[in-house]
Amino acid sequence: MIRKVNLAEKLSQFSECWSPKIVGELNNSYVKVVKVQGDFVWHHHDNEDELFLVMKGRLRMRYREDGVERDMHIGPGEFVIIPRGTEHLPSSDEETHIVLLEPRSTLNTGNVRSERTVEALETI
Amino acid sequence: MIRKVNLAEKLSQFSECWSPKIVGELNNSYVKVVKVQGDFVWHHHDNEDELFLVMKGRLRMRYREDGVERDMHIGPGEFVIIPRGTEHLPSSDEETHIVLLEPRSTLNTGNVRSERTVEALETI
Repeated sequence: MIRKVNLAEKLSQFSECWSPKIVGELNNSYVKVVKVQGDFVWHHHDNEDELFLVMKGRLRMRYREDGVERDMHIGPGEFVIIPRGTEHLPSSDEETHIVLLEPRSTLNTGNVRSERTVEALETI
Repeated sequence: MIRKVNLAEKLSQFSECWSPKIVGELNNSYVKVVKVQGDFVWHHHDNEDELFLVMKGRLRMRYREDGVERDMHIGPGEFVIIPRGTEHLPSSDEETHIVLLEPRSTLNTGNVRSERTVEALETI
């Protein structure tokens, strides 16, 4: 059944950080929402590109490109795509709300297992 | 090279309606932005699911589900996914700004060729 999804309403349904929730599925990918604050872990995804669209707050994305560590700040209405294979570490000083788009096969911590790893995602 | 994309800034770069522009690529799909006003054409996509995320304005999505015509109104911060095979007709009374996510293979008018068909999309 076709339904409309209100992103702010979905984000109001939970408070925990670093726990992505599925809010849509298309073409073998999931649309997810997640709240983040603090540092994630350095990781990469071998086979998946990931899109991060900021709805609220400010995301600092640290990443390694051509052997050099860089970062960028992403605010509301902005997105970044992290290509497969790219080491990255999402981080935020303030609580930040993000829409993720990534293949269904994507594990949040990519090649790393840590306390941040979430194996089974909830659909809301 | 990894770059940040500001959706409002991309949308400020053009004024024509019904002419999607590519603003990102991931996992064999494109992220596009488009301005719409008035009626599109009834069409479907045989093999592609499509996501419509409204940034500004109000999108009326007419569609046929189980042989019944329905519609919904989608406002800023809301999205809808139209599954492959579903006849749909996007429409809007006011100028409405949308982010699209769909496979690279997607033709905007799907199974139909019309004056609305755009064969080669510009990347901005």
